[in-house]
Amino acid sequence: MNNSKSNYIVFNSIGIIQSPYIKSAPYQPLNEDDGEFVLNLDQAYKKGLKDLDSFNYIYVIYYLDKAIRSKELEISPPWENNQQIGVFASRSPNRPNPIGLSVVKIKKIVDNKIFISGIDAFNGTPILDIKPYLDKLDAKTDANFGWVHTTDDTEHLNLHIKGIPHAH
Amino acid sequence: MNNSKSNYIVFNSIGIIQSPYIKSAPYQPLNEDDGEFVLNLDQAYKKGLKDLDSFNYIYVIYYLDKAIRSKELEISPPWENNQQIGVFASRSPNRPNPIGLSVVKIKKIVDNKIFISGIDAFNGTPILDIKPYLDKLDAKTDANFGWVHTTDDTEHLNLHIKGIPHAH
Repeated sequence: MNNSKSNYIVFNSIGIIQSPYIKSAPYQPLNEDDGEFVLNLDQAYKKGLKDLDSFNYIYVIYYLDKAIRSKELEISPPWENNQQIGVFASRSPNRPNPIGLSVVKIKKIVDNKIFISGIDAFNGTPILDIKPYLDKLDAKTDANFGWVHTTDDTEHLNLHIKGIPHAH
Repeated sequence: MNNSKSNYIVFNSIGIIQSPYIKSAPYQPLNEDDGEFVLNLDQAYKKGLKDLDSFNYIYVIYYLDKAIRSKELEISPPWENNQQIGVFASRSPNRPNPIGLSVVKIKKIVDNKIFISGIDAFNGTPILDIKPYLDKLDAKTDANFGWVHTTDDTEHLNLHIKGIPHAH
């Protein structure tokens, strides 16, 4: 199954995330209202947005182009003393395939631009896909927090919820 | 931004989805308990699963290798009479970047194998990433159904929820 033919998978950027987070700037926690977050789709894909504004939430799948394609399979959250977490049990950007996934709120769609709530992505991040987030299918009322349970973990989770870039 | 350098994005398969749905078999709705659904990670990535079993739900991101890399940006759900939906407002596998995304329940993890609830993916589908699904961050209690509101839509949604492959 896992032969060389199937092992290289090529995608194309379909647009760019516009955010107030600029590469190599120090991480500065911003309120999500402090900046504009826009999914700037290439004009060629504009027609694919029809009826997307009927959803409250969408998934954004993007390429973490500034992340390290890490070979480390266990990571240590900076706020934990020596706790080692498997990379697939974390949302660290440094992972075998640096794919980002966020649930964001749609504010409005104008032409090829989707104005959204905060997203934890640097300005210029390439977009791979956009999908509707559906009640029942995606909203799991019995989800838990897994190993994320301490106060510091919760603060860190809040950065994700608010869409604020931060170190892992 | 969207120059040729950033426009080709290469990922690698990290494992294979094992499901009762075999390519080119007729779509046969199965109950999710009728078959075994397993994320069969390559042994090399096994260490990345540490602590993943502390979560009820995970995201699986996979490569829809049997889908058409469609240039059609509007699709027509087969049960709707001439309703045209933008591809990004749909979960159709035939999309510019054929990336699949499912929220699944973890049953158990044994060695490099994650036993999960039903997933709408053919046997042999390459896995791109696995992420924890977190309460608050991912479970949006005010999510809606967007344009998906008729009885037929709901039946179709149920196929997604139960992880049953079907035509779009």
